[in-house]
Amino acid sequence: GVFGGRMTEMATRLSADVVTIDDEWGQPVDPQKLEAALESNPDTKIVGFVHAETSTGALSDASKLAEIAQRFGCLTIVDTVTSLTGSPLYVDDWGLDAVYSGAQKCLSSVAGIAPLTISDRAIEKINQRQTPVSTWFHDIGLIDGYWSESSSRSYHHTAPVNSIFALAESLRLVKQEGLERSWERHRKISQTLLTGLSQLNLEMMVEDASIRLPQLSVVKVPEGIDEAMVRARLLQEYDIEIGPGLGPLAGQVWRIGLMGYSCRSENVERLLGVLKEVLSDLPEVSSSSG
Amino acid sequence: GVFGGRMTEMATRLSADVVTIDDEWGQPVDPQKLEAALESNPDTKIVGFVHAETSTGALSDASKLAEIAQRFGCLTIVDTVTSLTGSPLYVDDWGLDAVYSGAQKCLSSVAGIAPLTISDRAIEKINQRQTPVSTWFHDIGLIDGYWSESSSRSYHHTAPVNSIFALAESLRLVKQEGLERSWERHRKISQTLLTGLSQLNLEMMVEDASIRLPQLSVVKVPEGIDEAMVRARLLQEYDIEIGPGLGPLAGQVWRIGLMGYSCRSENVERLLGVLKEVLSDLPEVSSSSG
Repeated sequence: GVFGGRMTEMATRLSADVVTIDDEWGQPVDPQKLEAALESNPDTKIVGFVHAETSTGALSDASKLAEIAQRFGCLTIVDTVTSLTGSPLYVDDWGLDAVYSGAQKCLSSVAGIAPLTISDRAIEKINQRQTPVSTWFHDIGLIDGYWSESSSRSYHHTAPVNSIFALAESLRLVKQEGLERSWERHRKISQTLLTGLSQLNLEMMVEDASIRLPQLSVVKVPEGIDEAMVRARLLQEYDIEIGPGLGPLAGQVWRIGLMGYSCRSENVERLLGVLKEVLSDLPEVSSSSG
Repeated sequence: GVFGGRMTEMATRLSADVVTIDDEWGQPVDPQKLEAALESNPDTKIVGFVHAETSTGALSDASKLAEIAQRFGCLTIVDTVTSLTGSPLYVDDWGLDAVYSGAQKCLSSVAGIAPLTISDRAIEKINQRQTPVSTWFHDIGLIDGYWSESSSRSYHHTAPVNSIFALAESLRLVKQEGLERSWERHRKISQTLLTGLSQLNLEMMVEDASIRLPQLSVVKVPEGIDEAMVRARLLQEYDIEIGPGLGPLAGQVWRIGLMGYSCRSENVERLLGVLKEVLSDLPEVSSSSG
């Protein structure tokens, strides 16, 4: 997906020698392909992947991928931007090394701050660096010296205190609900959405339910529909925003987010009702649906 | 100062070939030294400097430095983190090229968002790059494609909307007061502080009033005083925070900020009263002041 591609671009810009594993869009990362790639590239040091790919709606098996990476002596970098609190994620049990997320997805907090966790194994690797990181801003070693309780808290940046308070409040709400209950809520509410969408004869991009994200449903746009007009009407007339397709899926799918606080049955009911109205109102589908 | 040094470190990490100009701490950047350095290094492409140095309290002559840089065909990168809205700053009139600031200083807004302006000349230079910027995050060309009205607004990042609203509100307040009046307020209120400090026999780090920052007063710690204890007492007993010295000035100075909303006479009066009490209370100075 787009964000796997983004990770590749970031690593390439930093002069990393990247071997990419290509899967069909809408499919999770194939563990067998990872294994084969590591066998043919024994010098590989880091395996990076997206847990919940926001452009396709597919969930990869982070546990399995990390297990393979470890078997080949690699550290893992895992994008959990869309999975954190929406899908099961066990950073320590699965042995993930550098795991980043966003506050604006299932945490329903402010955008502009990124939760990050780094394993001891990865910190050790960082501490062994012989060359300085090319940007001061992203130098995790320095940030660790600012954050970590074991260090002297040497100044690195002015802390974005308002965002940190917002994030702390979001985490408090997650704790109050309980992680497992949050995952279950995302699963259940998205099931209601899927049932309703199929009643509108809309098909999902990811067919296999076991790898389909509950917090982000990617729906195929029916033939002959002006998909941008549907999104514009939802937004302008009903104040509901759904996302367009990204990358090669542009124009072909809608991306419906049900993340964190917005993942509630009243939102699903409202969207389904409005979507039915807007779709039946379009000249292109009125003949087949009327 | 510390932040000029930081700029050097950042450029060095990005493999720039940096020629530094060293001035005594507490002195502004010497224009003659810049001129001499550019004469001996005719290949120089960029001149970078800090306008208002937060570690020493000294203001450099950005207009003069930019004029010299332009005469030698260089672009300028100017740190205005502490100067913006606290000291006169004319980005266009002075012909500054890449100018960054912070929202948490004289704008009195939230930390975590950085105002930035880039001249057409610098954008042209950026657009002519042959190699990609090493970090996606800091790629101004891509950010320009997201921001700029002339572009197709291609997605670069999730906008930190809460911080942007906070910044917009701060800018509205600055506009309401008027930039010139804001500068004048900073000048006037800091004068009250300086008068009060000299009555307490405290000396300023920057002696020359014409290059002294109004928004940040750097005060010499009197001999024999436990400066950290003074700061701790101000904070714990009176809820007033003043900064310690940075870098080589650690332990030697206090840094008193009067920035944006906090730059008000009642704050100055309160600090002066409390400081008098705390200083006369210390065993070390009680004999000379009592």
